[in-house]
Amino acid sequence: MQLGLIGLGRMGQIVADRCLDAGHDVVAFDLDEDAVAAAADAGAEPADSVADLATQLAATDGPSCVWLMVPAGPAVDAALDDLESHLDGDDVVVDGGNSYYEDSVRRAEACPAAYLDCGTSGGPAGAELGFSLMVGGPAWAYEALEPVFDAVATGPDGHARMGPSGAGHYVKMVHNGVEYALMQAYGEGFELLHEGRYDLDLEAVAGVWNNGAVIRSWLLELCEEAFREEGTALGDVADRIEGGSTGTWTVQEGLEQEVPVPLIYTALAERFGSRADEGRFSRRLANRLRYGFGRHEVQRRS
Amino acid sequence: MQLGLIGLGRMGQIVADRCLDAGHDVVAFDLDEDAVAAAADAGAEPADSVADLATQLAATDGPSCVWLMVPAGPAVDAALDDLESHLDGDDVVVDGGNSYYEDSVRRAEACPAAYLDCGTSGGPAGAELGFSLMVGGPAWAYEALEPVFDAVATGPDGHARMGPSGAGHYVKMVHNGVEYALMQAYGEGFELLHEGRYDLDLEAVAGVWNNGAVIRSWLLELCEEAFREEGTALGDVADRIEGGSTGTWTVQEGLEQEVPVPLIYTALAERFGSRADEGRFSRRLANRLRYGFGRHEVQRRS
Amino acid sequence: MQLGLIGLGRMGQIVADRCLDAGHDVVAFDLDEDAVAAAADAGAEPADSVADLATQLAATDGPSCVWLMVPAGPAVDAALDDLESHLDGDDVVVDGGNSYYEDSVRRAEACPAAYLDCGTSGGPAGAELGFSLMVGGPAWAYEALEPVFDAVATGPDGHARMGPSGAGHYVKMVHNGVEYALMQAYGEGFELLHEGRYDLDLEAVAGVWNNGAVIRSWLLELCEEAFREEGTALGDVADRIEGGSTGTWTVQEGLEQEVPVPLIYTALAERFGSRADEGRFSRRLANRLRYGFGRHEVQRRS
Amino acid sequence: MQLGLIGLGRMGQIVADRCLDAGHDVVAFDLDEDAVAAAADAGAEPADSVADLATQLAATDGPSCVWLMVPAGPAVDAALDDLESHLDGDDVVVDGGNSYYEDSVRRAEACPAAYLDCGTSGGPAGAELGFSLMVGGPAWAYEALEPVFDAVATGPDGHARMGPSGAGHYVKMVHNGVEYALMQAYGEGFELLHEGRYDLDLEAVAGVWNNGAVIRSWLLELCEEAFREEGTALGDVADRIEGGSTGTWTVQEGLEQEVPVPLIYTALAERFGSRADEGRFSRRLANRLRYGFGRHEVQRRS
Repeated sequence: MQLGLIGLGRMGQIVADRCLDAGHDVVAFDLDEDAVAAAADAGAEPADSVADLATQLAATDGPSCVWLMVPAGPAVDAALDDLESHLDGDDVVVDGGNSYYEDSVRRAEACPAAYLDCGTSGGPAGAELGFSLMVGGPAWAYEALEPVFDAVATGPDGHARMGPSGAGHYVKMVHNGVEYALMQAYGEGFELLHEGRYDLDLEAVAGVWNNGAVIRSWLLELCEEAFREEGTALGDVADRIEGGSTGTWTVQEGLEQEVPVPLIYTALAERFGSRADEGRFSRRLANRLRYGFGRHEVQRRS
Repeated sequence: MQLGLIGLGRMGQIVADRCLDAGHDVVAFDLDEDAVAAAADAGAEPADSVADLATQLAATDGPSCVWLMVPAGPAVDAALDDLESHLDGDDVVVDGGNSYYEDSVRRAEACPAAYLDCGTSGGPAGAELGFSLMVGGPAWAYEALEPVFDAVATGPDGHARMGPSGAGHYVKMVHNGVEYALMQAYGEGFELLHEGRYDLDLEAVAGVWNNGAVIRSWLLELCEEAFREEGTALGDVADRIEGGSTGTWTVQEGLEQEVPVPLIYTALAERFGSRADEGRFSRRLANRLRYGFGRHEVQRRS
Repeated sequence: MQLGLIGLGRMGQIVADRCLDAGHDVVAFDLDEDAVAAAADAGAEPADSVADLATQLAATDGPSCVWLMVPAGPAVDAALDDLESHLDGDDVVVDGGNSYYEDSVRRAEACPAAYLDCGTSGGPAGAELGFSLMVGGPAWAYEALEPVFDAVATGPDGHARMGPSGAGHYVKMVHNGVEYALMQAYGEGFELLHEGRYDLDLEAVAGVWNNGAVIRSWLLELCEEAFREEGTALGDVADRIEGGSTGTWTVQEGLEQEVPVPLIYTALAERFGSRADEGRFSRRLANRLRYGFGRHEVQRRS
Repeated sequence: MQLGLIGLGRMGQIVADRCLDAGHDVVAFDLDEDAVAAAADAGAEPADSVADLATQLAATDGPSCVWLMVPAGPAVDAALDDLESHLDGDDVVVDGGNSYYEDSVRRAEACPAAYLDCGTSGGPAGAELGFSLMVGGPAWAYEALEPVFDAVATGPDGHARMGPSGAGHYVKMVHNGVEYALMQAYGEGFELLHEGRYDLDLEAVAGVWNNGAVIRSWLLELCEEAFREEGTALGDVADRIEGGSTGTWTVQEGLEQEVPVPLIYTALAERFGSRADEGRFSRRLANRLRYGFGRHEVQRRS
């Protein structure tokens, strides 16, 4: 089938390539002309604007299907604004980015076309394997897009409709919260092994764990890769973790639902703490209080 | 090669079967005569005592190799006591159970034979796939046992020597601490999805995550299986988690090394809390204090 | 000076009594006529509506000053709606409740009078001692109300202007978050003593701590009172903690500011957990997973 | 009554001064001759060795009473060794330091005299106010020492017998665990206020809280003092918290008793984290993993 694709960054290129490889027609647009040219070289029809992309899709029989692979936030709304006059109720728009699920609910209500929110997991590594796709929105629209989802995902098992609008990005939000906690859990284990009683080769540890141990996983394979590429002491990798929006949303949703998520919270808090370049005020106060009640020497910045 | 095997519980049987399948000779002993008979049916030589097992091993050329697959604790010491007079420095003993690493260091020093501590992960599911084996002890002894490790593990990549005595059980201890945290991390995510805004099929969620998502893992496959077998609301599965010794050791080691392991600690504390049948005293006090300062109604047991 | 007082619940009555005791004139209104009658008996001028209250205040020379002591939320907006046509820029309104600070900022912008948000801590026990008042809003309005604040607070040291609009309720929000954590910290200590190696009289423990120990505090005095009144095992006090809105706001603000507040979060999560009458889903899943990988018996609900 | 005092550090001097002020006779010894001379100037009888001190005590009618105020650990055992030959079952030894309670149980069994383990809280500030004393050991010995405890403590309410040997140091251990959590709880609140939406004077916040607010406490008075002396941003106070042994013991006891103490654990872990001068390995790994699955830029040390 034919798919319009808006956004040709790393993830968008993979969507294009996997669709083309599966025999679909792709009409591709990005603000970056070079990215459009690269997609055209790979077999896509280039479009020089959203309007041009919409026009090309309309020229073909059947409803228009557009996949947005742009950064979550204003870029999604901007693309939808540009598309709006070209769409009607038979058409389908997919947002494959990390949008906040409430934004997706709002956009689904406003969009003249059917709107599918599609959480996409797997990262650039999905180029070969395919992604895991968590989809929310009308069942008919999901079914209409199944050939595309089969191509972009790992296959028919790699995508599923989670529920009505927002459900896809909701499940993806929670996925990412769990991801934070899993990373930190492995990190605690490796930190203890690194600091502990034995002089261990952490690549070998991760390797043997990945072969049959209960905790084997793709993230653990990435740990193994990290130790192989950076060394068992992780070289000059810094103690600083960027990102955090989806984890923050997950914790906020836990507060709303009164569901405790202490591991996810702690993993998120480690990110915040890693970025506190001036040190943690709470710990500075505790340092000073130990002088207050016990006359323990105050540690001072040199 | 020839292997003496003491302990024919669920895990011991798998060791026997995998060794026999690989063409090794197994002399098998267990206090349970039926288990010995079953092993004999499968092709092992039965032994009716540790002494008998040792004698059979001694009757064959080359050093004796004995694998202990008995519960961690006094059963290991009892088996070693029985073996002691039959072993010398050319022989090798493997402890494949979940022993505390300091016990393994102590036993290695006391044992007349070379002593390998072997953390074994994978559980009963390892029957088909093979286990992940983390081995500590003398390099020559590890190398001598490699044919057996190849058979018991997933293959040559499923076992590795972690370091000197204790290193194998040390790495396994930390593995289990991480395991607690991973389970709880997935649990938080699924709890939030279960209590949250959408009516979700958690088996389908786990299924699509297991196909290409960043958080895919064997534990997540077990989550998928759990939802398939128990239902998306987990039926009558109780809020009670048994076990905890290896996780406790991991946290204790973190205290000794001054390495924070808050996710592992929290996961362990959830186990403790799940077994507080009379409720948590700390929360009962907080309930009462809210009356103390704010005259909020005290919640009473009915 | 003269003060209009809207809201004569437990906290409002204390405000009335302390103002009257200090020699101020109080015009009092509440939807509950009995509460108004009781205030009149105590020396206040009764009002039978907000309009009546406003008219009485306007009949006196000088600006009108109105203290709202109604539940946070719609009741505050309703009172302000009723007052709006009676107020001008020389008048002052104080919100003494637990309003969300952003609501206070919004109300301050909309209110024709000067608006002071006043966090009030100390609970019913403040009747004798006086409250701690954290005030936000215009400096001139704060200064104009100082005689009233002196009377309602513990004295001149018991109130302070924290900053512009919202700052008072912001500081009170954080105060309450800290309060949750302090209660849980004491609770952990007493739980450990209750479950631990010695048969201890917790009232005696709290008593000796309250006399000179580093952790002495008013909350610890309330612990002592709780053990005295309920017994060292807390009798039939239930494991259930209600409330949580101000703690939730505090954690949310920590997320916004990227400031980790793990103790406050954990204390809040204990409240959520104490109200999970069907058990924690995350722990039920962990219970089942232990069967999945280790064939440990699944604990079932009886 | 007469008291022998071994150890004239900051805390020992206060014990000496308070006993002398209350009219007791003090025989004082310390390895530091200047400290002994200072105590003599203040009215104590100097001793130039433990044997000399014991001889002076024996020269007086009635049993000998000796208070040890030396650092927890080997110094206590050394003093007891020196005392041993001079003591019999009518005599009483008090260990006023922060000894581990199991050591106190062991020492009580070995000591020829009655042995009281006495947790002492209040720090140098106790010089004026007196300490909080938590005492374990034989009831008759506790009663015999009551005049001394009255003097050293805030008064008769400032000391109590908690139970048999070890109970005093056990309760003190838990006291300190709670202390860690309280400090961190206040720290979280002030950190949020420091980083948050308003430009606040934290000394003023602490001050108004200390006048009537629910969370008022002695530690909060120390916070107020800290902000007064260091400034609202805490000047050059470093993000580094030393100490941790009693908190570690508290968490270990929670593990033994299967009592969750997550706030105490988290406060302890913050100390560990504050001393991780090379950064936290777990967070470095998470940083690298984000590249692994998402090609997010790795943060490197400059």
